[in-house]
Amino acid sequence: MPADDAPTLTVVGVAHTPYSTPADAPHQGFADDAESTIDVFDEYAEALEGLTDVVRLTVVYWADEADRSSGRDGEGADVGAFARRTPNRPNPLNICTCLLLDVEGARLRVTGLDAVDGSPVLDVKPALQPER
Amino acid sequence: MPADDAPTLTVVGVAHTPYSTPADAPHQGFADDAESTIDVFDEYAEALEGLTDVVRLTVVYWADEADRSSGRDGEGADVGAFARRTPNRPNPLNICTCLLLDVEGARLRVTGLDAVDGSPVLDVKPALQPER
Repeated sequence: MPADDAPTLTVVGVAHTPYSTPADAPHQGFADDAESTIDVFDEYAEALEGLTDVVRLTVVYWADEADRSSGRDGEGADVGAFARRTPNRPNPLNICTCLLLDVEGARLRVTGLDAVDGSPVLDVKPALQPER
Repeated sequence: MPADDAPTLTVVGVAHTPYSTPADAPHQGFADDAESTIDVFDEYAEALEGLTDVVRLTVVYWADEADRSSGRDGEGADVGAFARRTPNRPNPLNICTCLLLDVEGARLRVTGLDAVDGSPVLDVKPALQPER
C-alpha cells in the first residue's frame, strides 16, 4: 500500500474522563476505577446494538496529543517506540480494556479507561477474555 | 475533533502470512502456530530497537478488505459491529497478540498472526501480559 493510500480513520465518538492532561491519565494497564463515559456519535449508534451483553470492553482511542515523529520517544528512552507502550509512536492507537457498566442510548459508562478527556474514540468491541 | 480533521494512519510495515484471503485467516483469538513475518519499513527500523527482549507482541494491522460501512455487519448478524469482533466495522483495526520468535534487522518472525497476507501493519508493541 503506497503512502498516499494510507487509511484515514473515522472518529466514532468521544471519551469523557477525569484526566485533563496526559500526565493525569493512568499508565496503560494500571487505570484506576474512576468512571468515564464514551459518547458514540449518532451515526454509529446502530453499531452498538447488542452491547448490553458485554462486560469487558476493548476501547481503541487516538492519543491526539502524542508525538508521532518519535522513533526513540525522546529524552530518557533507551529503546525504540515499538519496544515500549508509550503513546509517542507513529500511530498513537491506544488500546484499553474497560469494564462496561451501562449503555444509555449511545452513551457508554465505563471504568478503567486511561484516555485524556476529549480523546477521539475509534472503536469499541468485546474483549477476548480477562486481560488484566 | 471535526470529521475533516480525522487522523490519517501511517503504514509502518507489511505482514506476510500463509493466509491469502479473509476466509483463510484464523478467527481472532484462535490463530494457529503458523509462522509469519512482519517487514517494518526502513524509516521505522529505529523504533524497533530493544524489541529483542520482548516475547509477546501486540500487533495492530489494518484489515483493508473489510466493509467499513457496516453497522450491523450484513447478513446473519443480529447484533451491531461494536458488539462483535468482526473486521467489518468503521475502523478495521485488528489487534492480535503474537509470539515474537526473532528479530532480523527490520523483519520480525512471529507465530499467531491472524492477518491476511499483505495486510498493512500499523503498530507493534509489547503485550501487557498473557492474554490467551
